[in-house]
Amino acid sequence: MNRFGIRFSFTTFGESHGKAIGCVVDGVPAGLTIDEAYIQRELDRRKPGQNAYATARKEEDTVEILSGVFEGKSTGTPIAMVIYNTNQKSKDYSNIKDIFRPGHADYTYWHKYGIRDYRGGGRSSARETAARVAAGAIAKLMLREVGITVKSGISEIAGIAASSFDFDHVLTSEIYALDPSVEQAQKDAILLAKNDHDSVGGVAQVRIENLPVGLGEPLYYKLDAVLADAMMGINAVKAVEIGDGLLGTRLHGSENNDPIRHSGFESNHSGGILGGISNGDAVRLSVYFKPTPSIFREQHTTTTEGEDVDFALKGRHDPCVAIRGSVVCEAMAALVVADMLLLNMGRTIEGVARYYHV
Amino acid sequence: MNRFGIRFSFTTFGESHGKAIGCVVDGVPAGLTIDEAYIQRELDRRKPGQNAYATARKEEDTVEILSGVFEGKSTGTPIAMVIYNTNQKSKDYSNIKDIFRPGHADYTYWHKYGIRDYRGGGRSSARETAARVAAGAIAKLMLREVGITVKSGISEIAGIAASSFDFDHVLTSEIYALDPSVEQAQKDAILLAKNDHDSVGGVAQVRIENLPVGLGEPLYYKLDAVLADAMMGINAVKAVEIGDGLLGTRLHGSENNDPIRHSGFESNHSGGILGGISNGDAVRLSVYFKPTPSIFREQHTTTTEGEDVDFALKGRHDPCVAIRGSVVCEAMAALVVADMLLLNMGRTIEGVARYYHV
Amino acid sequence: MNRFGIRFSFTTFGESHGKAIGCVVDGVPAGLTIDEAYIQRELDRRKPGQNAYATARKEEDTVEILSGVFEGKSTGTPIAMVIYNTNQKSKDYSNIKDIFRPGHADYTYWHKYGIRDYRGGGRSSARETAARVAAGAIAKLMLREVGITVKSGISEIAGIAASSFDFDHVLTSEIYALDPSVEQAQKDAILLAKNDHDSVGGVAQVRIENLPVGLGEPLYYKLDAVLADAMMGINAVKAVEIGDGLLGTRLHGSENNDPIRHSGFESNHSGGILGGISNGDAVRLSVYFKPTPSIFREQHTTTTEGEDVDFALKGRHDPCVAIRGSVVCEAMAALVVADMLLLNMGRTIEGVARYYHV
Amino acid sequence: MNRFGIRFSFTTFGESHGKAIGCVVDGVPAGLTIDEAYIQRELDRRKPGQNAYATARKEEDTVEILSGVFEGKSTGTPIAMVIYNTNQKSKDYSNIKDIFRPGHADYTYWHKYGIRDYRGGGRSSARETAARVAAGAIAKLMLREVGITVKSGISEIAGIAASSFDFDHVLTSEIYALDPSVEQAQKDAILLAKNDHDSVGGVAQVRIENLPVGLGEPLYYKLDAVLADAMMGINAVKAVEIGDGLLGTRLHGSENNDPIRHSGFESNHSGGILGGISNGDAVRLSVYFKPTPSIFREQHTTTTEGEDVDFALKGRHDPCVAIRGSVVCEAMAALVVADMLLLNMGRTIEGVARYYHV
Repeated sequence: MNRFGIRFSFTTFGESHGKAIGCVVDGVPAGLTIDEAYIQRELDRRKPGQNAYATARKEEDTVEILSGVFEGKSTGTPIAMVIYNTNQKSKDYSNIKDIFRPGHADYTYWHKYGIRDYRGGGRSSARETAARVAAGAIAKLMLREVGITVKSGISEIAGIAASSFDFDHVLTSEIYALDPSVEQAQKDAILLAKNDHDSVGGVAQVRIENLPVGLGEPLYYKLDAVLADAMMGINAVKAVEIGDGLLGTRLHGSENNDPIRHSGFESNHSGGILGGISNGDAVRLSVYFKPTPSIFREQHTTTTEGEDVDFALKGRHDPCVAIRGSVVCEAMAALVVADMLLLNMGRTIEGVARYYHV
Repeated sequence: MNRFGIRFSFTTFGESHGKAIGCVVDGVPAGLTIDEAYIQRELDRRKPGQNAYATARKEEDTVEILSGVFEGKSTGTPIAMVIYNTNQKSKDYSNIKDIFRPGHADYTYWHKYGIRDYRGGGRSSARETAARVAAGAIAKLMLREVGITVKSGISEIAGIAASSFDFDHVLTSEIYALDPSVEQAQKDAILLAKNDHDSVGGVAQVRIENLPVGLGEPLYYKLDAVLADAMMGINAVKAVEIGDGLLGTRLHGSENNDPIRHSGFESNHSGGILGGISNGDAVRLSVYFKPTPSIFREQHTTTTEGEDVDFALKGRHDPCVAIRGSVVCEAMAALVVADMLLLNMGRTIEGVARYYHV
Repeated sequence: MNRFGIRFSFTTFGESHGKAIGCVVDGVPAGLTIDEAYIQRELDRRKPGQNAYATARKEEDTVEILSGVFEGKSTGTPIAMVIYNTNQKSKDYSNIKDIFRPGHADYTYWHKYGIRDYRGGGRSSARETAARVAAGAIAKLMLREVGITVKSGISEIAGIAASSFDFDHVLTSEIYALDPSVEQAQKDAILLAKNDHDSVGGVAQVRIENLPVGLGEPLYYKLDAVLADAMMGINAVKAVEIGDGLLGTRLHGSENNDPIRHSGFESNHSGGILGGISNGDAVRLSVYFKPTPSIFREQHTTTTEGEDVDFALKGRHDPCVAIRGSVVCEAMAALVVADMLLLNMGRTIEGVARYYHV
Repeated sequence: MNRFGIRFSFTTFGESHGKAIGCVVDGVPAGLTIDEAYIQRELDRRKPGQNAYATARKEEDTVEILSGVFEGKSTGTPIAMVIYNTNQKSKDYSNIKDIFRPGHADYTYWHKYGIRDYRGGGRSSARETAARVAAGAIAKLMLREVGITVKSGISEIAGIAASSFDFDHVLTSEIYALDPSVEQAQKDAILLAKNDHDSVGGVAQVRIENLPVGLGEPLYYKLDAVLADAMMGINAVKAVEIGDGLLGTRLHGSENNDPIRHSGFESNHSGGILGGISNGDAVRLSVYFKPTPSIFREQHTTTTEGEDVDFALKGRHDPCVAIRGSVVCEAMAALVVADMLLLNMGRTIEGVARYYHV
C-alpha cells in the first residue's frame, strides 16, 4: 500500500524524522540516461527553506542512487534512491507527543495503528513527497524521450485567482505563480496569514503536453481516474478537476462538447481526456489544496488519554502548502503518464506483432 | 484493467449492445446473506426509462446470479452476475458507424484499439455501470452487517444548487433531489434543455456514515484517493471533492481545521478523512458531472476516414446523466469502503493475534 | 484471488454444480481473430466422458462468448465466456453433505469459510479448469500470431514412464500418451486401478516452442516461477519441474550447464529458462499429478460434527486426473506466456521510442 | 516486478556490485517488536565465507533499518532495510564483461535489456537473496507471535540423500545437513567436486509447523502455488515438490489419500495442503537446486559480439548453492505464510463483525 503504478511503479519509505526517506522505482526501461543532477534539481524545486513563503526549516534533500544505474544508464532493474534526514529536530515535537494536531493525521494513525511516530507527523509528513519528486524526475526523463512534457504552477492562493497561465513565469516565481498580474497579491495574502499565525489554501495547475492519443486503460485504470487518485493522495489535497470540470456542470452539452475536425479538437473543455483515454490535446488538471493545518493559534484538541486541551503549535511550517505541493503534483502526473505509456503498449495485435518483428 | 479493488474486488465485462453485461465480485466474506431482490432493487434505481427526466430507452436490467451463493448465503467464492441485454436496437447506431460523436470516447477508443464497437458506445457506454451497481449492492449488504450506510443524491443541476441535503427526500424524488425547495427549478432546467435538444450538467453528493476510525491505507491506497479514483472513473465525471475541498482553498487554516474534543470532532470540513484515513465522522463527497454529450443539435465532427461533417445525433438519451449517475457514485463508494474494511484487518499485531485466538 | 496474470489476465467463477462456470479474459489485444470453434475444440479435449480412461460423467461444456468480440475480432475489451452446467446431479452428493472426502478440499474449505457447497466439490472441483482451458484457447490464438506454440502430453502413469516424447502422437491417443511404446501398459495400469475401485497418478509434459529471448520479469515475476505457480495451482498437482530439474540435482555443474555457441545453446538442461527469462530454446515443464482422491474404497474420515466414519465414495470419477489435467497445464502455460509477452514490451527505452514512432 | 506478496509484501533492489542491496517490507502489522539483532543473525546464516563448503568471498552483510520502526516497534509503515556492499572486487569481473557465462542469466539479461551490469551477475546475482532473508526475518518475527515456525535444511547433495530429517541438527552443521548419518559423505562430495573445479546440486527441505487451518486463497493464490512461485524464483532452483508429490505419482489413491479422524489426519502425504489451503498439518516442501553454474573448467560460450570462445571462469563461488539457498527457501516460506495469514482475515462475515466488535 506504499506503492503506486503498475508497469512504471514506485514504492516509498521513510518518516520525517527517521534515518532516511526514499523510494524504489521499478519498471524503468533499460538504456535511459539517468541524469542524477537533474533529479537533484527537481528535488531542489520542492526543497523548503528557500524564501519567506515557505517554511524556514532547511532540509538539504540530497539524493543518492543506490541501484539500477550502471555507467550512467538505467539497466532495467529497480532504481533505489535514498535521502538521508539531516535536519532532525526531534525535540521540537516532544510537546506534541500525546496531542492530536487538528487537521493532521495524528488522530487517524494513532487509532489505526495503536502507535504513532509523533516526530513531525512521521510517515504522514509531507516530507515523504520528496521521494515522489525523485521518482517523478525519472519519469520525466523517460517522457522526454518520447516528447511528452509535464508542467505545473500555482493558479490561485487564498481565493486570488490567475486569469491566464504562463508556465514559463513559474520558473522564476518564488511562489510558482502562473499569472504575474496577481502574483504580488497572492504573496501578500500568504504573508498576511503567516504574520497572523495562520495559513492559506490554494490551487495548483498541471499541464501535460504532446501525449499520444490512446493513453489510459478503461474501465478501471482510466487516465483521469488514476490522475485523480495520484493527486488526491498528495498531502492537503481535497479536490481534483479535469479540464473545465467545475464550469462544465453549469454548461449545456452544446457548449461543453469539444467539436472535432480532422485536424484536431476545436476546443479543450475535456482536459484532453475522453472516456478515460488521452485524445491528443493537452491534459489539464486543477488540484485544490486546503490551508496548511499547522498553525500557531490556539486550537481545541484532545490527547491520546482523552484529555481535552487548548493548544498552540510551535515549529516551522509552510504558510501555504500548495506552492511546494504543485511540484509534487507535477511529479505524480509524470509518474502516471509514464505508467500509462508502458501499459498502452500491446493493446493491438498489430502492435504486438510489430514489436516482435513478426 | 477492468477490475477494481484489492480485497473486495470486482471485474466487469460487456458492451451496451453485446449479449450481456456483468461482473464477478471477488472477496465477499462467506456467510453473508445475499438478498437477490435487494440487488435488483438497487439496479432498478439506476434503470432508465422511468420518467421524463431520463432517457426513454427501456432496459429491464434483470440480474441473474451465476455463482458464489449457496442456499442464500455467500460461500466466499466469486459471485458472478449477468444482465442480458434485451433492448438492443443496433440499427439505431448504424448512422454513427464511422463518425466520432463529440464528447464521447469514440475517437479515443478507435485510436487506441484500431477497432470500435460503434453500437451505442460499446464498452464505453454508461450501460456498463449497471454492473457496478450490482456489485455495489453486495458491498452494501456487507457494510450493513457492520452498521455502515452509504447514501447519495443530487445537489445541483444546471447551476441550481441545493442549500441543504435531505437524503430521505431522494427516495421519493424523480430526479433524486436532495433539496425539495429547488427540486422543481432543477426539473424545469432539465426539461428546458431537453426540449431544446440539449443537455445539462449536475453535481451528486455521497454520504457514508458510521465508518470505524482507521479505514484507508497510506500512502498510496488512501481512502480519499481511492474514492477519487472510483468517482472520476464514472462516465461523465470531471471533478471530485472531499468534504469542503473547494471552499477550503479560500479559508484560513484556523477556519478549515476541525477542532477535536474527546467526544469527537467539532466540525467536519475534512469530509471525515485525515491523512487518507477515516476519522469516524461522516465521509462526504461531491461528484461533478458534465452535461450529457449526446445531444440532438448539429455539431462539428469528423469520420474515421478524416472527413469533416456536421452531424446531429439521433436516439434516446438522458438529458442529465448526473441523476442516474448518482446511484453509480453510491455503489462505487460502497465498494471502496468494503475493500478498505477488509484491508484494514490485521494492521496491528494485537489484531492479528486476537483474530487467530492466540 | 480468483484472477491470474497481470497484462493478459483472466478471472474465473463458478462451482461444479452451480448454474454456470466461466471466465473474464482481460488484456487481449484488439484485432485478434477470435475463432469460437477453436475455443470449443480446446474445451472438447478436456471434456469428460469420452472413453474408458476418464469419468463416465458427461458434460457438454458448450462455451458462449458474452462480450469483447465484435464482428469476429477482439475489441480490446474483456472477453467473458460462460459454460452453463447441464449435467448437475446434485443428489449424487447429498450423502457426502457432512463428510470430508479424504484427499479433497472439503475439510479446508469448510474450516476456512465456515460453509461449504458440498455438491461435487463446489468451487474446488476440477470442473472449474474448463474455464482455464477456454481462456487458454484465446492465449493460444494470440501466441499463434507471433509463432509461439504450446503442446502437452502424458509422459508417465503409475510409474510407467515414456522414454521419448512424440507430441503428435498425443493428438490420437485416448490417454494423450507421448510414447506409443508404453501407451498400452499405461492404459492397462489405469484400468487395473479403476476395476480395483482405485486410482493412479501421473506426469504431464508441457513444451513451449519459438519463444523470443527475454520473456520473464525478474526478480519476482520470473517465467519459471510463474509457470510453477500456474501448474501447482491446478487440481491434484503436487510438484513442478523445469527442464532437467530433478536430474540436475545429481549432476555436476560441468554436466548440467548448457554450452553456448553464437548459433544457440548446445543442450537444453535448463528447460529454456536462465535467470527466470526465456533463452530462446524450448521451454520444458514436467507436472506431477497425485492419484485421483475420489476412490470407491472405504476410507477413514470424519464429519462436520466431528464424528469418525468409514466411508466409500460413489459417483463417476477419472481414474487418472493427469490425463485431462495435461490439457489444463497446456492452457495455463499459454496464459503465462501471453502475459509475459505483453509485459516484456517496453523493457528498453529504444523499444518504447520505436513503438511510439519517435 | 521486483515485489512479492500482497498484504505482507516486500520489494528488493540492488546489484551484487552496486552500492547496496536492500528491501522495503510493507504491510507489517504495527506493534511488532523488531529485534534487529535477530534479523542480523538470520542474515549471518546466509552469509558466505564461513567454511570450506561455501565461497571464500567474504561479505559482512550488515543490515541497517532505515524506516518503519520507532522505539523498537513496527509502526505499520514500510520497513526499509539496506545492506551496503563492502567487498566489491569489480575488477574480478572485467574479463567476463563481454562473455555470457554458461548456466547464468548473462545471456538472457543482455538480450532482454540490451545492457548488462556484468559485475558478478549484477541484479541476477544470488547476492540479492540477502534482502529476502532480511525481509523473511521480519516475517518470522510476526509468525512467532501466532506460534508458527519455519525451518529448513539440506536433505540431499550430489544424490546422497538423507533418510531422516533432524531440523535441530541443521543448526550445528556446516552444510545445514538434516541427517548426520550422511553428512560426512555429503561434505566429501562437495569437496571432491570443488577440488575438481566443479560443483554439485542438492535438495533443501522446508517445514512449516503450527499453521492454522485455512491459509491459502483459492483459486489463484493457493498456498502451494504461491510457495512454488516463491521457491522456483530462488536462484538455481529448478523443481518444487509439496509433501510426497513425486512419490505420489506412483501410488494409488488409496495409498496417497491421508485418512481423517476427528483428531486430525492419520498421515501427511499431502504436505499439509488440500485444495491449496493449509489443513493444519505441517507444510512440507522439497526444493531442488541445480549445481552452481560458476565452475572453473573450460566451457563453450560466446560473446556479445557473437564470437565463440572456450572460457574458464575465475573468482570465488559456492561449490553447492543449495546450502546457503536453503536459508533463502526458509525466508521465502515465512514471507508467503505471513502474507497468507493476513489475507485470510475477513474471509467470513462472522470474522469481520467480530474484528470490528459488531
